[in-house]
Amino acid sequence: MVRGRRVHLVRGGPLGTRQETGETYPLSQVQLLPPVKAGKIVAIGLNYYTHIGDRAIPSKPEPFLKTPSSVIGTGDAIVLPSDAGRVDEEGEVVAVIGRRARNLREEDVDDYVFGYTCGNDVSAREWQAGDLQWWRAKSSDTFTAVGPWIVTGLNPDDMDIAVRVNGKEVQRANTSELIYSIRKCIAFITSAMTLEPGDLVFTGTPGATTQLNAGDSVEVEVGGIGILVNRVRAEGAGAGE
Amino acid sequence: MVRGRRVHLVRGGPLGTRQETGETYPLSQVQLLPPVKAGKIVAIGLNYYTHIGDRAIPSKPEPFLKTPSSVIGTGDAIVLPSDAGRVDEEGEVVAVIGRRARNLREEDVDDYVFGYTCGNDVSAREWQAGDLQWWRAKSSDTFTAVGPWIVTGLNPDDMDIAVRVNGKEVQRANTSELIYSIRKCIAFITSAMTLEPGDLVFTGTPGATTQLNAGDSVEVEVGGIGILVNRVRAEGAGAGE
Repeated sequence: MVRGRRVHLVRGGPLGTRQETGETYPLSQVQLLPPVKAGKIVAIGLNYYTHIGDRAIPSKPEPFLKTPSSVIGTGDAIVLPSDAGRVDEEGEVVAVIGRRARNLREEDVDDYVFGYTCGNDVSAREWQAGDLQWWRAKSSDTFTAVGPWIVTGLNPDDMDIAVRVNGKEVQRANTSELIYSIRKCIAFITSAMTLEPGDLVFTGTPGATTQLNAGDSVEVEVGGIGILVNRVRAEGAGAGE
Repeated sequence: MVRGRRVHLVRGGPLGTRQETGETYPLSQVQLLPPVKAGKIVAIGLNYYTHIGDRAIPSKPEPFLKTPSSVIGTGDAIVLPSDAGRVDEEGEVVAVIGRRARNLREEDVDDYVFGYTCGNDVSAREWQAGDLQWWRAKSSDTFTAVGPWIVTGLNPDDMDIAVRVNGKEVQRANTSELIYSIRKCIAFITSAMTLEPGDLVFTGTPGATTQLNAGDSVEVEVGGIGILVNRVRAEGAGAGE
């Protein structure tokens, strides 16, 4: 658990029972891993009016799947595949499921969400346009950045999100501007499939995204949570690039 | 491990080291679970000429993702969601990955495949046609049947597959008729993402599929492996229907 600038060691996982051991470390000396090991990742496409452009407004939430093996944490590198062409960031608010959930009503969703974190749904645009499905466009290795940690007790209808590339703001929104609210999206997903503890729901990206280049630094900041930071490097290049 | 009609208890998982304990049980008295806990499931669309109909022949393998939470084993029920409309079976040969694999060459794929099993890529056709992506069309709960067990040492280019609904054959092919061979598909997947031990690769379904109705029995048989059997029931109906 992170309190202030210190990490407090606990016994047990983030989602189950946990007990502080009393041991603490300065946050600056700890490498943060992805804050949860997801069994499944469901993301919502086309969920901000500002992102849709001239595409039709969806008549229902439009989920798609991402793989757990694509997950990286804060501080890890986003790797640009050599044959992918253009790759963009997509900053998002991410819900972390805390309890097994099926056929939820919208008003019950909060009881099944453990908390929220920041996410970057990295997207290879040529693969997204040219493939039958978005398997690699959204799930190549390193294409799902989450972190730096999970915060509980937030209001999903009022979270500010901002994305910066090399310090320059490229995306900004508030979750009140979502076409389908976070609660609506999660309830809709559970109308067809069970969400399990640790599963992640990416809730949509606002506005226009930006092409990432090797050497870039991408920050996704969600108000009340913190900043997810990832550097970008080319496939095959050393981690220092 | 299954030998003849007896199950031999082992210590350790199917993919790692394992040691027989000497304890055995009659196969008929054992409930078979899905033979592996998959971290990720990648399936290939449009991979038999006989399944494509008037759609264009793909210029490369066309993978899509399925969720681990949709997996059932042999003997489990396929549940028809009440709001899905038409649901079909798709019998397939399924590769089980045995070693962490990235950027494989086709000729090295066999070293990374642990074995093969039978699979049913259950598919809700209206959701598949009407949704932006195939998230629920292919991954509603119970939509990924695998089993009854994994067989090692098979030739992926010469496996017979047959599917029966209520005893009547509805699909038949040999993997030699695949547009993209199993080795080609797995190598292609690893060009964009890491495959991990236990991950499953569904390799495509042949011919025309059949609408499933409550009460149906579906069998997917792969030569050299065995028969995956699932009954079909309506959502909300008891397991006995």
